[in-house]
Amino acid sequence: MEPDDLPIRGRFVGREHRLPIRVFFEDTDLSGVVYHANYLRYMERARSDMLAVAGVDQRAAFDEGEGVYVVADLSIRYLRPARLDDELLVLTRVRKVSAASVTIHQRVMLGADMLTDATVLAAFVTRGGGRPRRQPREWLTRFEGLVEDA
Amino acid sequence: MEPDDLPIRGRFVGREHRLPIRVFFEDTDLSGVVYHANYLRYMERARSDMLAVAGVDQRAAFDEGEGVYVVADLSIRYLRPARLDDELLVLTRVRKVSAASVTIHQRVMLGADMLTDATVLAAFVTRGGGRPRRQPREWLTRFEGLVEDA
Amino acid sequence: MEPDDLPIRGRFVGREHRLPIRVFFEDTDLSGVVYHANYLRYMERARSDMLAVAGVDQRAAFDEGEGVYVVADLSIRYLRPARLDDELLVLTRVRKVSAASVTIHQRVMLGADMLTDATVLAAFVTRGGGRPRRQPREWLTRFEGLVEDA
Amino acid sequence: MEPDDLPIRGRFVGREHRLPIRVFFEDTDLSGVVYHANYLRYMERARSDMLAVAGVDQRAAFDEGEGVYVVADLSIRYLRPARLDDELLVLTRVRKVSAASVTIHQRVMLGADMLTDATVLAAFVTRGGGRPRRQPREWLTRFEGLVEDA
Repeated sequence: MEPDDLPIRGRFVGREHRLPIRVFFEDTDLSGVVYHANYLRYMERARSDMLAVAGVDQRAAFDEGEGVYVVADLSIRYLRPARLDDELLVLTRVRKVSAASVTIHQRVMLGADMLTDATVLAAFVTRGGGRPRRQPREWLTRFEGLVEDA
Repeated sequence: MEPDDLPIRGRFVGREHRLPIRVFFEDTDLSGVVYHANYLRYMERARSDMLAVAGVDQRAAFDEGEGVYVVADLSIRYLRPARLDDELLVLTRVRKVSAASVTIHQRVMLGADMLTDATVLAAFVTRGGGRPRRQPREWLTRFEGLVEDA
Repeated sequence: MEPDDLPIRGRFVGREHRLPIRVFFEDTDLSGVVYHANYLRYMERARSDMLAVAGVDQRAAFDEGEGVYVVADLSIRYLRPARLDDELLVLTRVRKVSAASVTIHQRVMLGADMLTDATVLAAFVTRGGGRPRRQPREWLTRFEGLVEDA
Repeated sequence: MEPDDLPIRGRFVGREHRLPIRVFFEDTDLSGVVYHANYLRYMERARSDMLAVAGVDQRAAFDEGEGVYVVADLSIRYLRPARLDDELLVLTRVRKVSAASVTIHQRVMLGADMLTDATVLAAFVTRGGGRPRRQPREWLTRFEGLVEDA
């Protein structure tokens, strides 16, 4: 496949990961703006992309039965709405890393305007049972390298 | 249409609104459980149903350009996962009412198990511009009648 | 759980299965009507419900590694739009049964108006690989009992 | 915003429009593959992108009350499943143009493998009522230039 035919990847600017997202019809509701639950889909795309760019292969980990990340806690403020065809940018930063979870700060931006501001606690769990488990050592090291200084 | 062919309505038990929801394929993801963003869809269904049961006609208010509720702030804890065909119950209580917003507590239950525990701030805004506006007086009165004593 | 707190089940009227569905905000898009892809979700809910009412336990079959139904072919005509809070009724009929697939006719109705008219070929496949496999004998017998005479 | 921070746009290769799409968790269901209705979302993204690349501003047309495209008829064959993190390419070709509608052929590819093969009839309708209306002359001319010779 030609490079032009590959889906977009986000990138790190320093320790901040950025993923651009366009708003399509599917994302809106009859009030004319993006349906509130869909920002969680945008943020999940950004976290998955951040993992991929950081060298973490979620699909392999899942297929091999190692485990999977789940959202354990999430809080989000909605400040301004997004509209059809808006070109958004999801900014993601790792705030804190522990053995079985990562705390992540995510903002959805439209140019200089912040649309949503969220904190997400992602926990690593066993594939079947959903019990907490320790993240692979190599991943921990990568996340620790991404944590911002206070 | 025969009564058997009407969609389900939730109901109030005291001041608590209850809406039953079944989990379908569309709600799950490859990890085998309900995708985290979909609980927000469940909770929105419950809030809309609560409004309808309480006599608030959102569609008319929207069509007549009066305004629409948007989620302004939301926090949710995910405690246990739901699976295909689970019979869930969304419990909704009004916590606080102000001129232009309502604070709502929502839990998704599977039998006696709490799966998610959330607080949602729903703001009433103008239809087009998304600016805060005062809720219709009649609605305010209804919500105030639903607020739980501390 | 009290009976009032259980999600709705559809029912058979003769050989026709009926599932009522209400339209929520999540189902609409900015054009003010239900987003076209969401009728496929409605129809899948109806097929899953029909299976359950007919005594077929999809979740057990999946968990035990027996297989899963996938849509192999689908054609749908959109005749009229559905709007927020509409009370729809999905009508499902089995048209034809073969060893590894079932042909199903599904209409979404709003009162006497037909909104969509669709034919779906559902194939039974192995859980992991997606290869066609013979449906359990007992299920075949049930579907054959549902086929309409020409 | 820097060019690296803009969402992807598809492109034309001759008269064929190509839009790359990555599969995320939200797109899959518990069977481990992309949920069938989500291919309709992918195809709608590709049609919207094709319009934008061809110079058609859907959002402006909608905001100004001119009209909106709706899917009137759709048929799709599902040949192979897509999985988490797959890099798909949606290929879109205009087959036929009439005053109030466009017939479009869309395939979702994974490398050289065709996953789905679909034909979509998109009708231009009035914004509120959903009545058919003539597409803007300028758009018609653009679509006619995209029609493939037999």
